[in-house]
Amino acid sequence: MIKVGIIGYGNLGRGVERALKQNKDMELVGVFTRRAPETVTTEGASAYTMEDLTAYQDKIDVCILCGGSATDLPIQTPELTHLFNTVDSFDTHAKIPEHFANVDKVAKENQTVSIISTGWDPGLFSLNRLYAQSILPNGETYTFWGKGVSQGHSDALRRIAGVADATQYTIPNTEIIERLKAGEKLTLTTRDKHLRECFVVLEENADAEKIKEEIVTMPNYFADYDTEVHFISQEELNHDHKAMPHGGTVLHTGTTHENTKQVIEYNLYLDSNPEFTASVLVAYARACARLANEQTFGAYTVLDIAPKYLSPISDEELRKELL
Amino acid sequence: MIKVGIIGYGNLGRGVERALKQNKDMELVGVFTRRAPETVTTEGASAYTMEDLTAYQDKIDVCILCGGSATDLPIQTPELTHLFNTVDSFDTHAKIPEHFANVDKVAKENQTVSIISTGWDPGLFSLNRLYAQSILPNGETYTFWGKGVSQGHSDALRRIAGVADATQYTIPNTEIIERLKAGEKLTLTTRDKHLRECFVVLEENADAEKIKEEIVTMPNYFADYDTEVHFISQEELNHDHKAMPHGGTVLHTGTTHENTKQVIEYNLYLDSNPEFTASVLVAYARACARLANEQTFGAYTVLDIAPKYLSPISDEELRKELL
Repeated sequence: MIKVGIIGYGNLGRGVERALKQNKDMELVGVFTRRAPETVTTEGASAYTMEDLTAYQDKIDVCILCGGSATDLPIQTPELTHLFNTVDSFDTHAKIPEHFANVDKVAKENQTVSIISTGWDPGLFSLNRLYAQSILPNGETYTFWGKGVSQGHSDALRRIAGVADATQYTIPNTEIIERLKAGEKLTLTTRDKHLRECFVVLEENADAEKIKEEIVTMPNYFADYDTEVHFISQEELNHDHKAMPHGGTVLHTGTTHENTKQVIEYNLYLDSNPEFTASVLVAYARACARLANEQTFGAYTVLDIAPKYLSPISDEELRKELL
Repeated sequence: MIKVGIIGYGNLGRGVERALKQNKDMELVGVFTRRAPETVTTEGASAYTMEDLTAYQDKIDVCILCGGSATDLPIQTPELTHLFNTVDSFDTHAKIPEHFANVDKVAKENQTVSIISTGWDPGLFSLNRLYAQSILPNGETYTFWGKGVSQGHSDALRRIAGVADATQYTIPNTEIIERLKAGEKLTLTTRDKHLRECFVVLEENADAEKIKEEIVTMPNYFADYDTEVHFISQEELNHDHKAMPHGGTVLHTGTTHENTKQVIEYNLYLDSNPEFTASVLVAYARACARLANEQTFGAYTVLDIAPKYLSPISDEELRKELL
């Protein structure tokens, strides 16, 4: 059995707890949290403080880090990798090389293994970009996100004065995807690829027109997109827009000779973004435990890890059943 | 530069020659054939006899084997792996464990590396089955093939008395795929998953009705499917049905908690099956050369190989650009 600790218990941590129940070769030791453990309602797991964690060094094979990329993981992953094998879903794309270097140094010095930036993007989408580009070097890769809830854009809406609550959906332009699949060569702007749909609850007496204008012109978040804004009640938002679906597409179109078109398409349709990300973390926690057993210490990303390490099934069975 | 030899020069061998031109870190040494080399029209490569091959032991890093799975590869891959690192696309699913064991023994004894059963199924589809099942263990995987030409079924048609020529398309049931993606639980028969469409040229005075009956009732090939038969002229067949498109879908539907559905879908749309398979062989030839450099001798399948080995780009660049 691979013994796992969950570090941080929000939506992602709860997703890991659920995913572990589906993996019979893995066992949850406990949830470690910065909150008072008695205030954390898990789905069965024991909750401990972060200070308790050190005492579990010999009882945990892998820590799955479920904090955020902005402030938690850049500190936590290197810190915990001193004592534990770790897996995280660090997703600030531009800072991955720096994060990798920090964690790799700690892992090599302390003979641990860390797999960073798992999840689906970075993660499974990265894998698909790599496979596709390696196989069809004469081609173009396009990544589309959604339909799904963007937490960052929803937060941006909620920071606007007069907005009580909001949910933002990122919506891929499926017509563009179909045209690319059909072989059209397109130069795409940000506006071409995705639409943004906002469901906004106003505070009493808020000026809807002014807020709408503020949304659609907001730099970085909305100005470069076609943005739809719907004002709805809190009840409707709670009823219809509090789930966390997401997904997306990695599309690679290439030619192998003259006009011989070849298309590789990878799609995710996720009812729950955090639960799916958690499931990827758990599969890579298995790989992490194995790499640690093989004493190949250091930091890894999904690009470095042979697919078979993710599966509980023996190499012989995999060759027989899946090839 | 990775120096490559092509063993066998049919559609697949020509595809490898074309793919190598798209990969600037690879260099084609020559084509080795059982035919008289002067009768082989390549797209620029020198052609040699199979007897010449031994003399090239120090001039070739990887041999890409482009023979058939029925009779060529079970003999050739073990034989050539005595002297060379090898890559093949052995695709008789049931015999992969035996082929792997044969090749692994030779590779370990002779300090070579062989990657067997690359291509797309087995190959990329196997990878997708493995990733999906490892991430969503509580789920079902479905593989659909087509729309594309099945060489085996086309051959079966051509063996019928009175048939001059024929092409058979395997067509996936897209309605079933959509229902599965929408979350329906279906128990599927062979007939539910694929249709078979046959374009047949009759010999003079052949009995069309009798031949149609013979086709749709042919055991193993057509009897278990809904099969459409179209009789057309040789001119029309040559004009419209001599390309080799193919493709397919690996669909995995799972739940992470109660009714929380998660769907992973991988699609290939290929104008040329042999050229795409060749492109996969070439990417794995790169991996093969690297594993040989690392002196990790033995046989491998796509499941054993870290994705980064397929790319000519450095690990640092991959982390920066693709994650």
